[in-house]
Formats: sequence, structure tokens, C-alpha cells
Amino acid sequence: MYPDSIKNLIESFKSLQGIGSKTAERLAFSILDLEDEQVEFFANSLTEMKEKIHKCKECNNLTDNDLCFICSDPGRDEHVLCVVDDSKSVFLFEKLGIFHGKYHVLDALISPLEGINPEDIGIDKLLKRIEDNHFDEIIFAFKPSIEGETTSLYIKRILDGLNIKVSRLASGIPIGADIEYIDSLTLERALNDRKSIE
Amino acid sequence: MYPDSIKNLIESFKSLQGIGSKTAERLAFSILDLEDEQVEFFANSLTEMKEKIHKCKECNNLTDNDLCFICSDPGRDEHVLCVVDDSKSVFLFEKLGIFHGKYHVLDALISPLEGINPEDIGIDKLLKRIEDNHFDEIIFAFKPSIEGETTSLYIKRILDGLNIKVSRLASGIPIGADIEYIDSLTLERALNDRKSIE
Repeated sequence: MYPDSIKNLIESFKSLQGIGSKTAERLAFSILDLEDEQVEFFANSLTEMKEKIHKCKECNNLTDNDLCFICSDPGRDEHVLCVVDDSKSVFLFEKLGIFHGKYHVLDALISPLEGINPEDIGIDKLLKRIEDNHFDEIIFAFKPSIEGETTSLYIKRILDGLNIKVSRLASGIPIGADIEYIDSLTLERALNDRKSIE
Repeated sequence: MYPDSIKNLIESFKSLQGIGSKTAERLAFSILDLEDEQVEFFANSLTEMKEKIHKCKECNNLTDNDLCFICSDPGRDEHVLCVVDDSKSVFLFEKLGIFHGKYHVLDALISPLEGINPEDIGIDKLLKRIEDNHFDEIIFAFKPSIEGETTSLYIKRILDGLNIKVSRLASGIPIGADIEYIDSLTLERALNDRKSIE
């Protein structure tokens, strides 16, 4: 029914994460409202993103240079390392401006169920980096999940005896949330991790 | 913060209808998960859509040929014309398979508030087409709105005396909807347009 050019574009939009048929159709049609230059810019951005973006050789963050914008910034605190499992987390933290140390992006989290073993998450590169630098503290900023816990514990055990403080993000009740709507695991964690009021 | 290639792609996604910053970021990152060939196909589809798609010379529907798939189909009922204000309506009707006549796509609906006058909606082409063919019925399938009503009435008045039946889509309560949640205009229309049960 659709002309080939429209059909192909709808298919392309559908290949994106979280885009269904209806949204893909809407997006494809909205291309017609753009100026020629905008569409050309869009097409170039697509191929450039795929061609130029790669992992930072130091920390695995996404970059179009050798070193990412964090690793090449001399103003960062060199003594704190935040370990994440996705580059998106780096950009999220940076957008909020709440962390001023360095980052390291793992390739994945350990997940025996999915067949992702410790040697698959890029742990060698992380350990080498910790060896070559003088970090006082390493913070694990994974999403609260079995995989996140497993990965944190695994790395923590390797680092034991190195005199580096190892921590993870606090889990608990989100600010503003109603206690009655919180799931039981989160509530249990919030109770176990309770903080004394000083 | 973002490398240029990512920033450009996020900007491009943001230029699409209904895509905000967060979604644009998610979509841009999801490009990294695609194969090289998929991204190339995507980029080509974008430029092809813009280059090849134009209006059918007969009915204004979108096509990559001289005539669209409806106008070049000899099996359609040549005596009924459905007038819409957007090509998307043609594809919607066709997907449902509920109409077997011909279509005509107006450039817009008359809207004095937005400065869209009768001469701006491509009415000449429609009238010429009606003159050159033998339509028994013309159906206006616009969204129920002041602009839709105005446009229907305007064209209807021009066609008066031509011995062509002119109709519009029924307005009323959607099937399955709760009467108490229907807006008052729709309810009023449903009451005025009530159908006798035979």
C-alpha cells in the first residue's frame, strides 16, 4: 500500500528501541514536513554517529576522539572512580552535575542466566586502570538488580586488601514516593540500610 | 557534553513531530545497537523519502510514481470520491479496507483564523476533477472540527445543482465509549443526527 520509499523509512524507524508500527508511521510522515537540508543533516548524522562514535580507550565511555570528554578533562577528581554499566549513565550523571570524579564503563553486568561471565564484562581493563592509578574510592553505580549486586560483590572481592574504599549507590525509597506503593524488596533494603539521624 | 556526532543525531530526532529531548536521546543511542547496514539503509530511506515522494498528479495522494496506487488501480469504484485533508487518511482507510472508491487529498482545510482561505486548499484541482469525471457521490472525511465543517459546506455550495450526492462521515459516540465521558458537542451532534431504528 505505501510507496516503497515510505515503507522503507517506516521499517527503519521500527528498528529503533521502543518504536512500534503506529509511531514509526507518524515519524516517517513527519519527515515530509522537514526542509531538504534538515533531512540531509539527519541522514548524515546517522552515518556519522555510527562511523565516528567509539569507546574511549581509557574508560570505555562513548566519544569521537581517542579520549572522552571526562578523561581529557584535567579538572576532574582523580581519586574517585564511578563504575557504571552503560555510557548513558555517564551522560546522566554529568547532566545533573552531581559527580566530579572519573568514570569507568563496563561492557555489561555479570549475568550467569544470560551467559555473561566475569570475563565478558571488560573487568581486565578496569583492574588494569585501578592498578595504574591511585583511586581512594570506587563507587558502583549500577541499577539495583541481582546482576548489579553480583558484579559489585565480584569486583569488591578482587579489590579486597588494596586499601580502596568501595561503595555503591544507596537503595531505598525515592524522594516524594508513597511508602504504600513501594515494592517489598526496596522497602526491605530501605529498612536494612536505615541511616541514623544525627 | 555529548560528542558532536551524538548531539547532531539527538537534534535531528528532536526535529520530528512529538519527539522530546529524552526520547530523542534514547533513539539516538539506540542507533548504536543497529548493524552498519541497517544504519545505512535508514540514512538512504530518509533521503529517498524526501527525494522521491511527491503528490499524485490526479488526487494529491503521496506516491513515488506519476499516479498513486489508488489512481492507477483499475478496480476502484469510479463513481464515489472521498475527499480528505491529509494523505495519512487515505492510508488509514486503505489499511482498514472499508472504502473502495477514489480519493482526493486537499492541501488543507479552510481556516480563516490561520489565514487559510478557500483558494489555498487546492479547490481548483478538486473541482476540475469533479468536472472531468462522473462521480455520483462525494464524501467529506475530515476530522470533526470547525475547519472541517466550513470546508465541507463551502465545497457543497459550489457543487449545488450538479446532481451529485454530497455526504460527510457520521459524528457521534464512538463504539464502546461511555456516554458520561463524551464531550457535550459530540453528544449534541449524536442527538441531532440520531438514526431511526427500522
